Amino acid sequence: MTGDGSRARRPGGRTRQVTERLSAAALDILAEKGVDGLQYEELAARAQVGRATVYRRWPNRDDLLRDVLARFAEASVPIADTGDVVHDLTTFLHAFAEASATPTGRAVLQILVRRSDEGDGLHRMGLELLDRRTDDLQRRLDRATEAEQLPPVKAPFVNMMLAGPVQWFVLRRSRPFTLTDAREIVELVVAGLWRDHRD
Amino acid sequence: MTGDGSRARRPGGRTRQVTERLSAAALDILAEKGVDGLQYEELAARAQVGRATVYRRWPNRDDLLRDVLARFAEASVPIADTGDVVHDLTTFLHAFAEASATPTGRAVLQILVRRSDEGDGLHRMGLELLDRRTDDLQRRLDRATEAEQLPPVKAPFVNMMLAGPVQWFVLRRSRPFTLTDAREIVELVVAGLWRDHRD
Repeated sequence: MTGDGSRARRPGGRTRQVTERLSAAALDILAEKGVDGLQYEELAARAQVGRATVYRRWPNRDDLLRDVLARFAEASVPIADTGDVVHDLTTFLHAFAEASATPTGRAVLQILVRRSDEGDGLHRMGLELLDRRTDDLQRRLDRATEAEQLPPVKAPFVNMMLAGPVQWFVLRRSRPFTLTDAREIVELVVAGLWRDHRD
Repeated sequence: MTGDGSRARRPGGRTRQVTERLSAAALDILAEKGVDGLQYEELAARAQVGRATVYRRWPNRDDLLRDVLARFAEASVPIADTGDVVHDLTTFLHAFAEASATPTGRAVLQILVRRSDEGDGLHRMGLELLDRRTDDLQRRLDRATEAEQLPPVKAPFVNMMLAGPVQWFVLRRSRPFTLTDAREIVELVVAGLWRDHRD
């Protein structure tokens, strides 16, 4: 947690430091109070800056939310390339599950399940976050196809087949999602993707 | 929509009719206003019964929600047995997608993504609904195993691999989920389930 008074005030801190502090405070608030709880006033108080500073950085709340959520998504779910696609997808899925199970991850999911009359802007924003990750995934999948570890596949479909079950699992909250769970899903999906490509 | 004044009052109607009317009104309210919007007073008004009647039927709100959601789940997602498990799972998934995309289906999902501090009772209720369906699915899968259409499989895992991607798809709301989409998921999962069982 940040902004609880334990940090020294840095009225002369540089822009980047202020942005870091604001982003961290925004993620904290999001985790504690959900999307609706993320308001300028509390954000300014927690980050120990004036409200004007927050408004200057994000003139409207949608920009603020988009920035904060993008930061969360990028920090939490990288896709590695060790040369072994099953291994890399397993690690990716496990990281996705851990991110989804955090209060902030749940807040992102709450954005997606909002009824459409409650703000389509936010819903689109949630989708943009997912799509940004899809581009990274497509590049990793293409390299696996070149290495003959996968047939040619489309990232949005693969992402749905991998991340959908994980999201389902995480929503149940019955136990933590393990690397073994991730590997079982990845192996099933990879075998299934090959179904029309066997000699 | 019911309870908008277009139905005649039936103060002498039998218990079953009143229950039907109450359930229909409750589903309407749930669809329009979400879980938090489902309150006794409005429910009584829409079903054109006294509040005492609603309280007699469901002494507490959790019972009311459980009944209404169970009714929704049972009505919307049957699992057939035509002898062809790929066909039956495809139909099942398509029906699940259609049910999930309705306002009420979205309300059920909202229950599952609530932050845990907002009411674990409701969350458990959502899970009970899912589990009830899992029993039906296990019976259908066991018959497919007997018919050598599937290896021995566990319904919760299969349900996660099938329903997870569908839920993911439906949350995007980019286009309707078709039977072709359902079949692609089912064929991939069935092929994947066989991966360790080939000679």
